[in-house]
Amino acid sequence: MKPYRLAARDGKDTIIEIVGNDGSCLIGEGYCTIIAGPCAVESEDSILTAARLVKELGAHILRGGAFKPRTSPYSFPGLGVHGLELLALARKETGLPIVTEVLDVRDIDRVLEVADIVQVGSRNMHNYPLLRELSRCKIPVLLKRGYAATVEEWLLAAEYLMAGGNEQVILCERGIRTFENMTRNTVDIGVVPLLKELSHLPVIVDPSHATGKWQMVRPVAKAAIAAGADGLMIEVHPHPETALSDGEQSLNGGNFSRLMDEIRALARLEGKKM
Amino acid sequence: MKPYRLAARDGKDTIIEIVGNDGSCLIGEGYCTIIAGPCAVESEDSILTAARLVKELGAHILRGGAFKPRTSPYSFPGLGVHGLELLALARKETGLPIVTEVLDVRDIDRVLEVADIVQVGSRNMHNYPLLRELSRCKIPVLLKRGYAATVEEWLLAAEYLMAGGNEQVILCERGIRTFENMTRNTVDIGVVPLLKELSHLPVIVDPSHATGKWQMVRPVAKAAIAAGADGLMIEVHPHPETALSDGEQSLNGGNFSRLMDEIRALARLEGKKM
Amino acid sequence: MKPYRLAARDGKDTIIEIVGNDGSCLIGEGYCTIIAGPCAVESEDSILTAARLVKELGAHILRGGAFKPRTSPYSFPGLGVHGLELLALARKETGLPIVTEVLDVRDIDRVLEVADIVQVGSRNMHNYPLLRELSRCKIPVLLKRGYAATVEEWLLAAEYLMAGGNEQVILCERGIRTFENMTRNTVDIGVVPLLKELSHLPVIVDPSHATGKWQMVRPVAKAAIAAGADGLMIEVHPHPETALSDGEQSLNGGNFSRLMDEIRALARLEGKKM
Amino acid sequence: MKPYRLAARDGKDTIIEIVGNDGSCLIGEGYCTIIAGPCAVESEDSILTAARLVKELGAHILRGGAFKPRTSPYSFPGLGVHGLELLALARKETGLPIVTEVLDVRDIDRVLEVADIVQVGSRNMHNYPLLRELSRCKIPVLLKRGYAATVEEWLLAAEYLMAGGNEQVILCERGIRTFENMTRNTVDIGVVPLLKELSHLPVIVDPSHATGKWQMVRPVAKAAIAAGADGLMIEVHPHPETALSDGEQSLNGGNFSRLMDEIRALARLEGKKM
Repeated sequence: MKPYRLAARDGKDTIIEIVGNDGSCLIGEGYCTIIAGPCAVESEDSILTAARLVKELGAHILRGGAFKPRTSPYSFPGLGVHGLELLALARKETGLPIVTEVLDVRDIDRVLEVADIVQVGSRNMHNYPLLRELSRCKIPVLLKRGYAATVEEWLLAAEYLMAGGNEQVILCERGIRTFENMTRNTVDIGVVPLLKELSHLPVIVDPSHATGKWQMVRPVAKAAIAAGADGLMIEVHPHPETALSDGEQSLNGGNFSRLMDEIRALARLEGKKM
Repeated sequence: MKPYRLAARDGKDTIIEIVGNDGSCLIGEGYCTIIAGPCAVESEDSILTAARLVKELGAHILRGGAFKPRTSPYSFPGLGVHGLELLALARKETGLPIVTEVLDVRDIDRVLEVADIVQVGSRNMHNYPLLRELSRCKIPVLLKRGYAATVEEWLLAAEYLMAGGNEQVILCERGIRTFENMTRNTVDIGVVPLLKELSHLPVIVDPSHATGKWQMVRPVAKAAIAAGADGLMIEVHPHPETALSDGEQSLNGGNFSRLMDEIRALARLEGKKM
Repeated sequence: MKPYRLAARDGKDTIIEIVGNDGSCLIGEGYCTIIAGPCAVESEDSILTAARLVKELGAHILRGGAFKPRTSPYSFPGLGVHGLELLALARKETGLPIVTEVLDVRDIDRVLEVADIVQVGSRNMHNYPLLRELSRCKIPVLLKRGYAATVEEWLLAAEYLMAGGNEQVILCERGIRTFENMTRNTVDIGVVPLLKELSHLPVIVDPSHATGKWQMVRPVAKAAIAAGADGLMIEVHPHPETALSDGEQSLNGGNFSRLMDEIRALARLEGKKM
Repeated sequence: MKPYRLAARDGKDTIIEIVGNDGSCLIGEGYCTIIAGPCAVESEDSILTAARLVKELGAHILRGGAFKPRTSPYSFPGLGVHGLELLALARKETGLPIVTEVLDVRDIDRVLEVADIVQVGSRNMHNYPLLRELSRCKIPVLLKRGYAATVEEWLLAAEYLMAGGNEQVILCERGIRTFENMTRNTVDIGVVPLLKELSHLPVIVDPSHATGKWQMVRPVAKAAIAAGADGLMIEVHPHPETALSDGEQSLNGGNFSRLMDEIRALARLEGKKM
C-alpha cells in the first residue's frame, strides 16, 4: 500500500486557480503555466522592471524572493519584509499573481498578505512544522522537491500539506544532487511522467536551479513541457550580470522571449492551453 | 584547458553516415534518427518480426543484442555468434543497418562482419583495451555513458576512440545511478545541451534503459528530442511480456507507433529531418 | 579562501563541557564521550529504564526524542512537551545530561528548560531560522549532517550557529544518502579526519542512523573511534523489538554492554579519556 | 532468495594462502594482511626501493601496477610487460608475493607468470569476459568494488569468478562515488560488517584510493581494521612528490611506518594475527 493517500492519483487531476490583482490563471493538466522573475527582490526599480518584462513576454505569475535561504550566513538573505512590500507593489502594478518563499513559520502571516502562492523551498521540504502550518492555510503551495529527496518523500511532504486540509499543492522539480558536478543539479525529467502516474497534483519544473546555467535553461524547459509538465518556473532578470544571486542561471529579456516563443509552439503541439 | 581535444567542439558538427544493406541514414545535428529493436536477439522468428515491425513504423536502424552483459553469471547471456547470424539475416531482409554490442576484444572481428554500428555498453565505457581496439576500426561506435561516469570521463572515453583514428563516435545518454530507486536510472536530460556545447559529436538518448518502465519511455523520448538530442534508441519487442530480458521497459508495436507519430511532429517543430 | 571562518581550524581544539544534574562531562579532542538512549521517549517507564541502563553501562549523556521529524504525517511524532517532562525526570533521577532535538523555533524555550544539549537533526541542517535562533542561545548544539549535505555546507551550518555567538557546536556524522540501499545510509567515515583537519569543533558519529541495522552498529562505532572521532551517539532500547521507531537499529542492553567494553579498550589504545 | 550462491555465507570463512618467492601469508578472518607499494611500477630502481621499504616495515604483499587504467588516453598507461618484469625482479629480490592488475583478457597469461594475486580494478568489476577468463585460472583474485556498484552487484561479480571454479576471491572496498567531492571517493566502511554477514570471502580496504589524500589514509586504515576488515591495501612510494600517478594519496616511508605501528596495536586488540 502506498504510504501517501491524499496525494495519490484517484482518477481526476487537480487544477488550481491562482488569483492575482486583475484576473487569474490555472495550473494543472492541460495547461502550460509560466512563472518567471528574479531570484531575489533587490530593489523597487529592479522588481518592477522585471515584473513588467515578464508580463509583457507572457508570463502568468511573478516569482521573487524576499526571504532567501542561503548556504552561508554571510550571503545576502533577501530584503525580508521590505521585499514583500515591493512584491505587493509589483502585484498591484502588473496584476500578476505572486509566488514567494517562506522559510520561517513566524513569517507565514506576513507572506500571506502578499503572496498568491507560497513557495516551500528545496531545503525546507522536510521542515514539518512549516508544512503543518501551511496545511491550515487557504493558499496554494508550490512545494519544491528536496535536493536529495526521493519521490516518495516528496509526495509525503505533499501529504503533510493535504492532511491538514490544504489541497492546493503544486509539485516543482528543481534538480537533484548527484555525482555529476558540471551542472548545479541534475534535473530528473523522468519524475514528470512518474508523478503524473502516481499523483493528481500539478507538476512543474524549474530548469534554472536544476541546471545552474542560463544556456541550458531553454532546452531543459522544452524537455519539461515535452515530458508532460504543467508549467515552468524560470529565473529572469533584466540584467543577469548584475544580479545579487543566481545571475549565472538567469535569462535576460531576449533569451526569455525566445524561450516563450518556443514553449508556446510546443504547448500548442501538446494541446496545452497557455 | 580541457583534458579532451579531439572530442571538443571546434565549430563544426560531426554528422555520421550509417550504411545498411540498401540505403543509408545520417546521425548528427539537424537529424532525428531512430534506433529500435529488442534488448536481445532471442530467435530467428522474433528478431525478424521485430525488425519488420520497427522498419514499417519508420525506424532507421535496428538494435539487438547478441552478446549481453549480465549482472549475474546465471542470467541469459545472449545467443552470441548465432545471434550475430540472425542479425545478419534481419539486416538482409529489411535493409536496416544494425547496431549491436561488443563486450570482448576477441569478438570485435566477428561483430564487425555484421554490425553497421558497434555499441560500447555502459559497463564497458571504462574498458580501455576495448576502446583502443575500436579506435583502430573503420566503423561508427555508439558509446553509452557509464552509469556513474561524469561527462568529462565520458568525453575522455570518446577521446580514446578518436585518438586511434576513429572519428565516428555517437554519444548515448542512458541514465545515471542516483539515490532515487523508483526508476531504474535517472536520465540526465541536461547532458544533451551540455554535450552540444562541449563537443561536436552526435548525442542520442536511450529512454528505455534510463527509465526501466515502458510507460515512461514516450514522455522521456519526447523530452530528449525537445532538449536537442539527435536521435533515440528505443527498446521495442513484438511481445514485451515474453521478452527474455528488459520486457518491462520495451514498447510493443502500438506504443512504438504512437511514439513515432509524436516524435515526428516534434522533429518537424524543431526543424530536424527524420 | 574558505567560506567559513569561525568554524575553521585555527590551532586549538574546542572542548565543550556538558553539565548535567550531578556532574559534567567533556566533548572534544582527547575524549571519548558516549551518548546513548532510545530514538523516541515513549513512556515514563521506558525512558527511565533506558536511562538507568545506559548510565549503568557507562554512557555519559542520555538521548531521547520528544519532537520527532517523521517522513509521513501519519507516523508517531513523539510525545512533544510531555516527552520533555519525562526527559526532565530521567535527568533528575540518573543525573545524566540530556540531548534532545528541536524542530520548531517556537519550541526552543521549552526544550531549553530540559536539554543540556540541543540537537539539530539531519533534515533541519539547512533550517536557517532555527540555526539563527540557536546561535543566540547559551547551550551546546549537536549539529547533525544533512543526509546529502557536503562538508562545506555542514561547516557553513555550524558557521550560522557560531556567527550569532554560540561557539558550543558539536558536529555529528550520521550517514549520507548514496545509490547503495542495503544499508539505511552510507556512513562517511572519511569526514572524521577531514573535519579534524578543517575545523576545531568536536566530531562524533551516530552509527545507528548511519547503518540502520543494529548488527552493524558495533563495528561502525569502533571504526569511528579508530578514525579519530570524539564520541558516539548510539540508539539503545531496553526492548528494541517493541520500539515505536527505529527498533531495527537499536541495541539492547547486552549488545550495548559489549560495545562499551570494546570502545573502552579502543579509547585506551588511542589515548582518549572515557 | 539471494541472487548469488557460491559467494554467500554458509558458515565457514574462506582463508586464502598467498605464496611468494620465499614463504607465504594468509588472507581472511582472523588475520590482518597488509598489501603495500606504489600505484605504478615506474622504474627498476623505484620499484626495488619501494619493495624493500614496505618489506622492511612489515608488509606481507607488494602491489604495483604494470597495466594502468587511465581516464585519459594521454596519461601514463604503465610500463606494461616491462613493468611485469620489474615486478618479477622485486618478487625475487624481496620474496614478497605480488599483486598486480590485469585489464585485458589477452594479457592474463603474461600477468599470471609474475603475479601471486591478480587484481580486477574498480573499472573492470563489470568486465564479464575478464571475470570469466579469471574464473578458469588457479590464482587468487583481488576484486575491487566498482566505484558505483551495489554490494549485490559486487557479490555477483565474485560469483562470476567462483562459478567458473575459482574460489580464491578477495573483496576490496576502495570507496564509492557520491555527491561529496572534497575527497576522491567516499569509503563505505559499513560494507565491512555487511560483507562479513553476507559472505564468507575475505574483505580488505584500500584507504588510499578511497580518500585520495595521504593525510586521511592512516585514520581510515585504522577504521577499516576496527570495523573488521581482514587487511589493507596501501599506496606507498619512497618519494610521493615525484610519483607519476597518485602521489597525493601515497604514504612515504615515515608515514607508512607510523601506520604499521598503529595497525599492529589495533590488530593485537582485535585478536587478529599480523
